[in-house]
Amino acid sequence: MRKASIVSVGNEVLSGQTVDTNASYLSEQLLSISLPVVSCYAIGDDIDSIVRALNLASSDADVVLATGGLGPTDDDLTRQAFAKFLGTELQLENQLLKRIEDFFTQRNLQMPEKNKIQAYIPSGAKALANNTGTAPGITAEVKGKLFIALPGVPLEMKRMFEESVFPRLKKLASESRQVQIAIRKLKCFGAGESTISELLGSLCRRGRNPLINCTVEHGVITLHIIATAKDKDKAQQMVEKDEELLRNILGALVYGTGEQSLAKVVGQKLAQQKKTIAVAESCTGGILAKLITDIPGASRYFTRGWVTYSNDAKNSELGIPPHLIEKYGAVSEKVARSMAQGARKRAGTDFAIGITGIAGPTGGSEQKPVGLVYISVDSDSDCETQRFIFFHDRGFIRLRAAQTALNMLRLRLRI
Amino acid sequence: MRKASIVSVGNEVLSGQTVDTNASYLSEQLLSISLPVVSCYAIGDDIDSIVRALNLASSDADVVLATGGLGPTDDDLTRQAFAKFLGTELQLENQLLKRIEDFFTQRNLQMPEKNKIQAYIPSGAKALANNTGTAPGITAEVKGKLFIALPGVPLEMKRMFEESVFPRLKKLASESRQVQIAIRKLKCFGAGESTISELLGSLCRRGRNPLINCTVEHGVITLHIIATAKDKDKAQQMVEKDEELLRNILGALVYGTGEQSLAKVVGQKLAQQKKTIAVAESCTGGILAKLITDIPGASRYFTRGWVTYSNDAKNSELGIPPHLIEKYGAVSEKVARSMAQGARKRAGTDFAIGITGIAGPTGGSEQKPVGLVYISVDSDSDCETQRFIFFHDRGFIRLRAAQTALNMLRLRLRI
Repeated sequence: MRKASIVSVGNEVLSGQTVDTNASYLSEQLLSISLPVVSCYAIGDDIDSIVRALNLASSDADVVLATGGLGPTDDDLTRQAFAKFLGTELQLENQLLKRIEDFFTQRNLQMPEKNKIQAYIPSGAKALANNTGTAPGITAEVKGKLFIALPGVPLEMKRMFEESVFPRLKKLASESRQVQIAIRKLKCFGAGESTISELLGSLCRRGRNPLINCTVEHGVITLHIIATAKDKDKAQQMVEKDEELLRNILGALVYGTGEQSLAKVVGQKLAQQKKTIAVAESCTGGILAKLITDIPGASRYFTRGWVTYSNDAKNSELGIPPHLIEKYGAVSEKVARSMAQGARKRAGTDFAIGITGIAGPTGGSEQKPVGLVYISVDSDSDCETQRFIFFHDRGFIRLRAAQTALNMLRLRLRI
Repeated sequence: MRKASIVSVGNEVLSGQTVDTNASYLSEQLLSISLPVVSCYAIGDDIDSIVRALNLASSDADVVLATGGLGPTDDDLTRQAFAKFLGTELQLENQLLKRIEDFFTQRNLQMPEKNKIQAYIPSGAKALANNTGTAPGITAEVKGKLFIALPGVPLEMKRMFEESVFPRLKKLASESRQVQIAIRKLKCFGAGESTISELLGSLCRRGRNPLINCTVEHGVITLHIIATAKDKDKAQQMVEKDEELLRNILGALVYGTGEQSLAKVVGQKLAQQKKTIAVAESCTGGILAKLITDIPGASRYFTRGWVTYSNDAKNSELGIPPHLIEKYGAVSEKVARSMAQGARKRAGTDFAIGITGIAGPTGGSEQKPVGLVYISVDSDSDCETQRFIFFHDRGFIRLRAAQTALNMLRLRLRI
């Protein structure tokens, strides 16, 4: 099986100013085509360090992917290092220059002189088109090994990788491969990592094939089912069998697959069932509306949202009686319910969600601690309100509350 | 000046299942005590790979920090690799064993047999206490170089680093240091990286002291001023002088320092000036309200927000006349202005922002392409509306629009 190695270039990575998400993105993509990454090197903006890392990486792997250092400024040195590594010189490519000039012209700008350097690539290497920014990528083959330099800006890197690199590597990996890997991700919400791990028991043991790995992010548990077999069909079957097994054990905890977000799954269900929704938020301050409208086409089911941060706004926008807030407090079951009901009535939607809570860091008390959140889902059949206590910091509490609201709605929408 | 190198151990890093936040955390901490990280190596759960990475790291640096591979399972191999690297054997430390047993006893659990391995460390090395989990750290000195192995779980790693490693490294770095480093970050918004780079000209050249590095995230340009000098005061003075220089050149493009977000700076100004704000969002779908309420204490100045996604909502919530939408379209200067004015009138705030645009990926036309956004800021003195075209994808357009709205408000709030 062929292997890959990654070189991340940039002082910002070494000074902790940037978390290197490029390396993890590339690693995941390459593993999915059975081209595993065996090493990653992060080094600073220094020609000799980059050359050394390229040498180390090429001793580990058949494919070397470098990211970063292709920008227009003086500390962008990957171009020069690539030329040094290849033993050639940089040369101007007029086509590239025109492309970069066009980039600025389209935006009614004149190309800064600095950007001209981006039209230079090492002699003997080829450029990769950048359809998002000005930095072209670079690719070269040396002694049967493939070297690829991509921009460091994640958006530009991803688009270039997807358009110009991934198809080529996929082909390369499939030609040489003795074993095939199939991967499936199951996305779960509503239980912690250890609960899910206990439910799955020995299915999670190391050395098992398929291997089941578990990662957690913002309450979403992702189970990675990774099967290895002689041929792709067999690996695929193994993954599918495991998926069925896991779904039987985990039931409604599984909300989706792949990269699906809770908002996407909920949106699909709303659209399928031709239902509409409105939201009324207090402590989450717009996060729930944001998650819902992150999904293209959300206007099919989402009509409006309120961020009623002040008590006065809760009254004037949603019709919540001031005496209710006075008697029970803004963070209470009654107010959450009244927010959901008021929002649904005012918006005329099939569903509405109300959220009120204490996101912190201050504002908590013994009876109502930081992290206390009430979430209410109103529909024409009934109104369900739940009380939660979320932990950690303000950002975590707010996001977890919004995600939990989506999950409550998801469970209501199951057929 | 002494240097550091980081070795991240674990298949989960190489398979992209985990983003290596440990490396960026450690890098930032170490830079703050003038012990810069010059290289990072990420390798899989394999003894020989770990030994090789330790060798490479020790050829780069005086201090080598490894993270991960100290857990109790079969794929945790950092202990063994450390012993091999040091040329010694693992040996049982009874005190460590007792500590691990106590960890379980305190939780009314019996120690699983597997965990016993965590009480072994290489002969000649020392253990570092883990007050959060069961994996002790390991530290050893070889030929004047310091090797430290920390757990991979971020929470455990950070606590162990802060308690047992940071004070020691701080002392070490200050003893040996001929030079001191001072760092300042200036945050800018409103111009691209190349424009700012051109404005700064030769100030950005490599080798200059202070060194000026530039990173970009979601339209925010961060300029890192890194000064090196014989003593801390001198370095600090150099940074301050450069800050003044940069501020003079960049003017209102600089909005803050350190880790400040636009929302935080705007919030501080609103609070200082005792002004209030409401927002009315269409294409940003709650992101602006979210950014504002990310800041603790936002209730001092933010009272409410609307996400008027449908035309009907724009009319019923903000009082926008249907004929205005019919005549000019929902995405138009007139509607943005009317949203801001309607929101301010309804909320009774000093300021209100209205945003309407086409976030895509569909819904664009030749006259009104994807990325077209109108942003209006209304106050009692006047109403300013601007037209923008943002590029890239839906997520980028939405976030950039919300950030740009905050920036428009920031410029209004300058004294």
